[in-house]
Amino acid sequence: MTPLAGLSAVDARARIRRGDYAGQTASVGPGMAQGNIAILPADWAEDFLRFCLANPKPCPLLAVGEVGRADLPSLGRDIDIRTDVPRYRVFRDGVAVEAPQDILAHWRNDLVTFVLGCSLSFEWPLIDAGLSIRHIEAGTTVPMYRTKIATQAAGRFRGPLVVSMRPFRPADAIRAVQVTTRFPGVHGAPVHIGLPGELGIADLARPDYGDPVAVGRDELPVFWACGVTPQAVVEEVKPPFFISHYPGCMLVTDVANATLAVL
Amino acid sequence: MTPLAGLSAVDARARIRRGDYAGQTASVGPGMAQGNIAILPADWAEDFLRFCLANPKPCPLLAVGEVGRADLPSLGRDIDIRTDVPRYRVFRDGVAVEAPQDILAHWRNDLVTFVLGCSLSFEWPLIDAGLSIRHIEAGTTVPMYRTKIATQAAGRFRGPLVVSMRPFRPADAIRAVQVTTRFPGVHGAPVHIGLPGELGIADLARPDYGDPVAVGRDELPVFWACGVTPQAVVEEVKPPFFISHYPGCMLVTDVANATLAVL
Repeated sequence: MTPLAGLSAVDARARIRRGDYAGQTASVGPGMAQGNIAILPADWAEDFLRFCLANPKPCPLLAVGEVGRADLPSLGRDIDIRTDVPRYRVFRDGVAVEAPQDILAHWRNDLVTFVLGCSLSFEWPLIDAGLSIRHIEAGTTVPMYRTKIATQAAGRFRGPLVVSMRPFRPADAIRAVQVTTRFPGVHGAPVHIGLPGELGIADLARPDYGDPVAVGRDELPVFWACGVTPQAVVEEVKPPFFISHYPGCMLVTDVANATLAVL
Repeated sequence: MTPLAGLSAVDARARIRRGDYAGQTASVGPGMAQGNIAILPADWAEDFLRFCLANPKPCPLLAVGEVGRADLPSLGRDIDIRTDVPRYRVFRDGVAVEAPQDILAHWRNDLVTFVLGCSLSFEWPLIDAGLSIRHIEAGTTVPMYRTKIATQAAGRFRGPLVVSMRPFRPADAIRAVQVTTRFPGVHGAPVHIGLPGELGIADLARPDYGDPVAVGRDELPVFWACGVTPQAVVEEVKPPFFISHYPGCMLVTDVANATLAVL
């Protein structure tokens, strides 16, 4: 439970904007979609847009901001992307150099904001379907792994697919495939199930981002494409300037998850 | 490939009716639903109907015949259930005593025919989705296993769930969940994936019915509820008289699989 529990998305964003909260956003803004953030200078934005279109499972586009504009009216009337994410990561030449609570001092008139769908959104319908989500029960951030699977290269962007992992007993894993298939705009169905070695993941207990969770002997690890993929790609491609959310600390929008379901 | 390849369902049934074919029906009657058969005396039929309704995944009802009638007009105008299945199994007191090509000599005026949806139906949409089905490639009968999972008891009927198994690489297993979810009338989504020990299956290479298939190290065994379940139940409950199809040798109907899709 976060200090933002029970608040609407609008009220949660107001607290975050004031600098009152810098933590992860699981369970914040009940029923509302959350977004992964990628902010790039305009001369890199066109390549990144093509990269997202070529990789819709890790990078499902929820919104693209206008050049130099900090608002995202289709996701919430009051959103200011410079202040409304609990914590950011600022990258220079592919290296994360800072993790500030706002990016007012970093803002430039040539920046373009991309908001990508987030697996926190489909966790609500999984819970509604009666499934238990291990990292939510533990109050930790979902474990995420860089894989040996390559994304589809586009323009100057190329790099590894990042996945998030949730363990389920087999019957629940099948149910999770069904539920998340309804949400292609927030990563959709899993990309892998059961054989982490096939993804190049040597040890589930050592995620590259987030926190490890226990996987029972009667459970299978289920893997979804993850919106942290752009951060792994940026570390490989090294654009001069890039800002993302801090893993797990998302933009909470006013778009209801239910409106993202295709069925 | 069977000698019936390329024939319509109507023409395939005509050959079977003449006694020209007594083999398995995979790939017979392209695009048409196939059925598992259960035939019981009327004084057992009501309990069996309740058993099917309580266990819709292994026993999805496609049709129930009138008492003493050998026709099934909703599944095909010409069907005579006494002759139109390639091979039958006749059980007395729960023991299979005969495997005849027709049951004309066994027919009685108190018999009720149940036709249950069959996984051969959903194999067509799996193939259409680009998946390879191991036992079809090998020309063998799908492997089936008695599990330690109990069916829901109803009336005098109780016993183990039987499952069929198809191995897939993980991404294809996820696709198979999506495709078969559309077909609840023919077993629907898998009941299990990946951990056969959880079902009480000690050795995948030794199925209880059908033929074994190879499972690669980069593959998961995927299990569907199977219409052979009534045969395992009858072996346990031992009704005085029962007739089924021989495993793999189904009734080919005139109902298009496409009409069974809920999406």
